[in-house]
Amino acid sequence: MTTKAQPGPVTMEKLTSLAKRRGFVFQSSEIYGGLASTWDYGPLGVLMKQNVKAAWWRSMVQERDDIVGLDAAILMHPKVWEASGHVAGFADALVECKSCHHRFREDHVWVVDATDEQGKIATVGIEASSLAEATEMAYEKLGIEEKLPKGTFTTFTLQPVPLANYPNRSNTPCPSCGQIAQLTDARMFNLMFKTFVGPVEEDAAMVYLRPETAQGIFVNFENVQTTTRKKLPFGIAQMGKSFRNEITTGNFIFRCREFEQMEMEFFVMPGDDDEWFERWVQARVDWWTGLGLRRESLRLREHGPDELSHYSKATTDIEFKFAWGWGELEGIANRTDFDLKQHAKHSGKSLKYFDEASGESVVPYVIEPASGVDRGFLAFLTDAYEEEQDKDDVRTVLRLHRAIAPIKVAVLPLSRKAPLQELAQDVYANLRKHWFVQYDAAQSIGRRYRRQDEIGTPLCVTIDFESLDDRQVTIRDRDTMEQVRVAIDELVPALRQRLEG
Amino acid sequence: MTTKAQPGPVTMEKLTSLAKRRGFVFQSSEIYGGLASTWDYGPLGVLMKQNVKAAWWRSMVQERDDIVGLDAAILMHPKVWEASGHVAGFADALVECKSCHHRFREDHVWVVDATDEQGKIATVGIEASSLAEATEMAYEKLGIEEKLPKGTFTTFTLQPVPLANYPNRSNTPCPSCGQIAQLTDARMFNLMFKTFVGPVEEDAAMVYLRPETAQGIFVNFENVQTTTRKKLPFGIAQMGKSFRNEITTGNFIFRCREFEQMEMEFFVMPGDDDEWFERWVQARVDWWTGLGLRRESLRLREHGPDELSHYSKATTDIEFKFAWGWGELEGIANRTDFDLKQHAKHSGKSLKYFDEASGESVVPYVIEPASGVDRGFLAFLTDAYEEEQDKDDVRTVLRLHRAIAPIKVAVLPLSRKAPLQELAQDVYANLRKHWFVQYDAAQSIGRRYRRQDEIGTPLCVTIDFESLDDRQVTIRDRDTMEQVRVAIDELVPALRQRLEG
Repeated sequence: MTTKAQPGPVTMEKLTSLAKRRGFVFQSSEIYGGLASTWDYGPLGVLMKQNVKAAWWRSMVQERDDIVGLDAAILMHPKVWEASGHVAGFADALVECKSCHHRFREDHVWVVDATDEQGKIATVGIEASSLAEATEMAYEKLGIEEKLPKGTFTTFTLQPVPLANYPNRSNTPCPSCGQIAQLTDARMFNLMFKTFVGPVEEDAAMVYLRPETAQGIFVNFENVQTTTRKKLPFGIAQMGKSFRNEITTGNFIFRCREFEQMEMEFFVMPGDDDEWFERWVQARVDWWTGLGLRRESLRLREHGPDELSHYSKATTDIEFKFAWGWGELEGIANRTDFDLKQHAKHSGKSLKYFDEASGESVVPYVIEPASGVDRGFLAFLTDAYEEEQDKDDVRTVLRLHRAIAPIKVAVLPLSRKAPLQELAQDVYANLRKHWFVQYDAAQSIGRRYRRQDEIGTPLCVTIDFESLDDRQVTIRDRDTMEQVRVAIDELVPALRQRLEG
Repeated sequence: MTTKAQPGPVTMEKLTSLAKRRGFVFQSSEIYGGLASTWDYGPLGVLMKQNVKAAWWRSMVQERDDIVGLDAAILMHPKVWEASGHVAGFADALVECKSCHHRFREDHVWVVDATDEQGKIATVGIEASSLAEATEMAYEKLGIEEKLPKGTFTTFTLQPVPLANYPNRSNTPCPSCGQIAQLTDARMFNLMFKTFVGPVEEDAAMVYLRPETAQGIFVNFENVQTTTRKKLPFGIAQMGKSFRNEITTGNFIFRCREFEQMEMEFFVMPGDDDEWFERWVQARVDWWTGLGLRRESLRLREHGPDELSHYSKATTDIEFKFAWGWGELEGIANRTDFDLKQHAKHSGKSLKYFDEASGESVVPYVIEPASGVDRGFLAFLTDAYEEEQDKDDVRTVLRLHRAIAPIKVAVLPLSRKAPLQELAQDVYANLRKHWFVQYDAAQSIGRRYRRQDEIGTPLCVTIDFESLDDRQVTIRDRDTMEQVRVAIDELVPALRQRLEG
């Protein structure tokens, strides 16, 4: 007797398994054991990722008359990163264990004292990114190490304290090997990858892989403004790869060392910045929900004064409820005139804008909505994932927005008999001119619908024996499962209306 | 009295000037003096580059049923490059001048003896990439250095010899500082950029920036084949950035250290490879000419036996006649089973394909058409550039294919009066939903047509005072300069037919 399968909530395990099984995302260099925290997008993943980028580009550049595009190089002059503050400030404080040589971000090390009524009975070091995680890990670790008598946990108190605030810091146990008093003082570690241009490896030839695309926009501000003759307010949008040598990575494609950004710098008159900041926060929420994310899966989080970046006057994160919890999807920042002023100072060029109304030159303020393509991809996947009871089985459906779904239409001949396949191939060849289409003739029609549901294909076109006579086919909708019969001659407009109308 | 402007042939100077002036391509980090051999694509350039990539992707992935896409990471496991042969073999031989420390590619150093009837009278070192260039530079250098009596050049003979073949090599003058006998022996210099992942800079953490996208396809061969259930022959297509630490760069965006590739690996049964090789050479020529390159601007060049890469059984380059001469646009290579076998050996994984017909497992052969996006961009720009006599002036037109042109339609109200601008803005807003469209109301209509011609916009829509009454507008064609009057309600289909029909 087999247990009846039950629909359940979305988990990271289900998502990564689906992503691998159906060709959305593979581990990079998998045959060599993988390269930590880099991922390859497979045949479906590359299409879906292109759709995310295309939707952003369309809404930012094509459909607006106040934003233009840019595609700056990943390798830039090293002075760019001096001016931007990244050389001096884009760093994590790291501590190293002198015994096992493991390195940790200082703000991810917690010291946890376990106490009962008589006082302290044990101390452990924990590597965790939040208080809650540190507490949970400490319970587990203390249990495993049997430092606490079994079954008596409830009578103990655990008190995780960040390493930097722990009074007896020098006696902290290493979170990895457990040795006491081996952690070094914190040293700053810059998160930019560096490499050398030209045949000599010397400081003069050192360049960085950009850690953000934004600076490519700032250094091109004048070239873009001059060649496009745009007036304030106007924006410059850019998509592309960035690289950060993160110490702590993880959660699938959420935090990678190589990732893709969609950043837009919107230049406004000083004084107009607060209003535009609010507008962009709203516009970006609308964009995500317009493409299918549930409003309740999103929340806004304002950065507190101590959390703001050095360049920012205000920042609001759009957070998404991932399978493991809330995480940043996009940040909207009021970068003020910081970047343009810094580049003007370091380059000796005037990066001002001449305002015809006032007859004065000003340094514009900048509002920046900056989001991650990979995070967006994961958010769309997460919110689209659904399991439904289907008789004794579970039907997995990706309810992706039609603009995001990698395959728009599947062509499914009911049988593999020659005349049916020929007709189906004709239909397939014709539809391919318009969309990314799959052809599937293997196994039962029910299984084929399931396969398409699982990858989020909005529409299936079924071709049966009657089609040979009446030149009609059936359109089946992924979400309503409704079936409509349409003449082959009318198929393209019928699909277009459902996909783009 | 001003000289009447005359149309002339396309030159690199004209192209780079137009590219900068109109926002196609800017020097990267220009405000900091630029970073050698990296370039940024401006507002028009980014659109045109996207169009080149989209046309390739459409023809490779969307419209074919035997090719799927992939987007692998730039950072890969270092063993990938050991297996591929890049760690050992992807290198240039460099010589260094012990006096001025300038480094040269050995095969770009020429020793030039100047002789007359009495024998040798001077010797110079030259850095050049061809015999013709070396000869020309030697004449110039000898003249400037006054080693040859003026006006007597014709009585002398110049004989450039590659450094490696020069009999008296140890006495070669440095091409840069002129010191004699200072050039070192050649040493191999690997062209891969390297960087370090994680907080410790040690060999164990060293990774390379990929020098080609192809290897990302080979290491994913099995994942892709399994998830897509494709049968031989089938291909995997990929577009993305690659990096090569070239010593000699130049010719604008032709040879850059950071560049974008469009590569497709087509896997076939061993024995079918020669036929598919020929097919792909033809298909790729057809693709370039189908998008507007003149057939006479292209030529095929087969690699000789001594020129073939270590992995290749046959390679044919598609060369384009750039403004400075012929240069490689795309290479089609028969890579045999070299790469899959190497990765199987180095990873310990079996990268075979089970052939149902024969019941045997085989290692497929691979045909690879590999082209450069930036080179394609430059080729399209070059062949599209045309100057025409227009009364006393020169009309510059980019006759870009409608699929490649960055802006498809320009909306031009004949006057800035309010009712006309309102109507024009309505038309503009509606057209933006379908294409990238520009709005231009500044200066005379003639100048505005010129501005659009210069950036290759295929169609202009002119809105005049009559339009207010009859709700009709004028479509003006860039190439024929024909003007057709069309009802506003019919404008989208009329434009669509001209742009996509």
